[in-house]
Amino acid sequence: MAWVDLNQQQKAIDLLASRGVSLQDIAEVTFLIQKDYFADLTMDFCLHNVQKVLEKTEVQHVVFTGIALDELAEKQMLPQPLQDIVHSDMGLYGVDEILALGIVNIYGSIGLTNFGYVDKAKVGIVGKIDQIGKENDQCMTFTDDIIAAIAAAAASRIAHNNGKRS
Amino acid sequence: MAWVDLNQQQKAIDLLASRGVSLQDIAEVTFLIQKDYFADLTMDFCLHNVQKVLEKTEVQHVVFTGIALDELAEKQMLPQPLQDIVHSDMGLYGVDEILALGIVNIYGSIGLTNFGYVDKAKVGIVGKIDQIGKENDQCMTFTDDIIAAIAAAAASRIAHNNGKRS
Amino acid sequence: MAWVDLNQQQKAIDLLASRGVSLQDIAEVTFLIQKDYFADLTMDFCLHNVQKVLEKTEVQHVVFTGIALDELAEKQMLPQPLQDIVHSDMGLYGVDEILALGIVNIYGSIGLTNFGYVDKAKVGIVGKIDQIGKENDQCMTFTDDIIAAIAAAAASRIAHNNGKRS
Amino acid sequence: MAWVDLNQQQKAIDLLASRGVSLQDIAEVTFLIQKDYFADLTMDFCLHNVQKVLEKTEVQHVVFTGIALDELAEKQMLPQPLQDIVHSDMGLYGVDEILALGIVNIYGSIGLTNFGYVDKAKVGIVGKIDQIGKENDQCMTFTDDIIAAIAAAAASRIAHNNGKRS
Repeated sequence: MAWVDLNQQQKAIDLLASRGVSLQDIAEVTFLIQKDYFADLTMDFCLHNVQKVLEKTEVQHVVFTGIALDELAEKQMLPQPLQDIVHSDMGLYGVDEILALGIVNIYGSIGLTNFGYVDKAKVGIVGKIDQIGKENDQCMTFTDDIIAAIAAAAASRIAHNNGKRS
Repeated sequence: MAWVDLNQQQKAIDLLASRGVSLQDIAEVTFLIQKDYFADLTMDFCLHNVQKVLEKTEVQHVVFTGIALDELAEKQMLPQPLQDIVHSDMGLYGVDEILALGIVNIYGSIGLTNFGYVDKAKVGIVGKIDQIGKENDQCMTFTDDIIAAIAAAAASRIAHNNGKRS
Repeated sequence: MAWVDLNQQQKAIDLLASRGVSLQDIAEVTFLIQKDYFADLTMDFCLHNVQKVLEKTEVQHVVFTGIALDELAEKQMLPQPLQDIVHSDMGLYGVDEILALGIVNIYGSIGLTNFGYVDKAKVGIVGKIDQIGKENDQCMTFTDDIIAAIAAAAASRIAHNNGKRS
Repeated sequence: MAWVDLNQQQKAIDLLASRGVSLQDIAEVTFLIQKDYFADLTMDFCLHNVQKVLEKTEVQHVVFTGIALDELAEKQMLPQPLQDIVHSDMGLYGVDEILALGIVNIYGSIGLTNFGYVDKAKVGIVGKIDQIGKENDQCMTFTDDIIAAIAAAAASRIAHNNGKRS
């Protein structure tokens, strides 16, 4: 097992909290998409897996980058035409999903299909955050995809470790 | 515009038909996942886009490869342990989804999230084919992912060309 | 054929020029990695294909996003710890390559392997830009990967259209 | 840590050996592409990382599937037109690289660029296997990409764990 940079992990968790997203919120999405497959799945186990996902350097880097872009858009600090594209979450803009792939790819194809589902069906907190981004001055273009990706990655982690020590 | 190998395209269409899947079936999935975004979307336009997706060499190659694997599994001609893994559509086997990425990747991130959704929600013919694979001796491990990918790719094509000449 | 937003394409070209990269420079990379496969390959044809790659909305969006991140890093305007990670082009930071995948993925697997090669072997302008990013206050963390991706995408376009009208 | 299915791992190693590829051969590729970054890199450490890569279920499944396709092509048992496409390793056929992505994706973007490099530069055993596939009746269309992917994944593993307990 590699050493874990707890400091960077905490920064990522704090950043998510500053956007109104708790690890509990993300774990709930994981629970909703996995409960039909594992009868004895608990919220605690989902939360544990969300935390493990956030230990990964690649995941932390995507969180840092995506949330920085949303925050800069809120402060009108991105250059044009990117500022308008990101702030309005333009339909054809797909860089947010591409960035999220940096999280799900490392959890294999189960992560990928779960991400597509959560992103489109807007499960739990993903739908709430998406709505906040549409209703007021906040920009959630990257944030909603990132939390969808973390939830999907945790789901994939559970599928791969089920019945095994995780 | 590149020349299109109509012969190879027809082979791919014939192969899908031999698995019980018509282009109309796939177009219906595209229609179902796109109708909420485009008020005047027609089945004809979805069908046209499914056909355009099947013009691509990469797409044809994935169809040839995936369906060959399903057919070989039905004939018990794959070596072990692959034979059992593919025929039972083992939960952790993800090569079917990876192969399908060869189709959706070339249609950008909209294709990817739509694929994840269709694959997991088992929309239309995708659900029917998945069920057939579970109920009898037929093996649909790759077939269901491939048609989900074609439908998602057509949806992405529509999103990118909407209001424009396609 | 979809309408092309010439305005956005020109913005992307201007942005690349502002980083010291001409389309000619990128076409040269494409030429270097493809000349062994096509005896009659010309620089003009490579340049034409680089231009076609830059017509795509997905490609323009990656250019806008990646170069914005490099410019913001140069102006010390990214939040920490992202500012230090991006400005130093930290070895384990892979978001630059992930973003570049948004360009190469839509050109199939030939684009992907060519991207890996150009990125690692630092062919032509990619090596020069990488060096500039290391030597002075300029930040080229995203820029070098983006031009590697455009060159690789053009190479894939040539491979797929060779002997056919492009 | 998840339980490791040593049986499946050994099957994958045996399959590679049946194609003329030892873990030592793959570790050598990893060594060649990583030695410039880590002064004290040893062949033993590369071999250890190659073995760890082969512990993963996703990796084993790609090995089983890809090598089965090469073997079936050698026995003329694939349906047409796939038989000719795979046996001749047709230039535009990219399913072999896509399958290999199932290995490298789970090791992040460092794995991806290394894979592109090894695949195109044909480092060590990758070049030898590619040559064997071209010279006689053996088909190495998938085998060469799979070993390139394993070597690249091991390289990424080393980069991520360097200076840390692995």
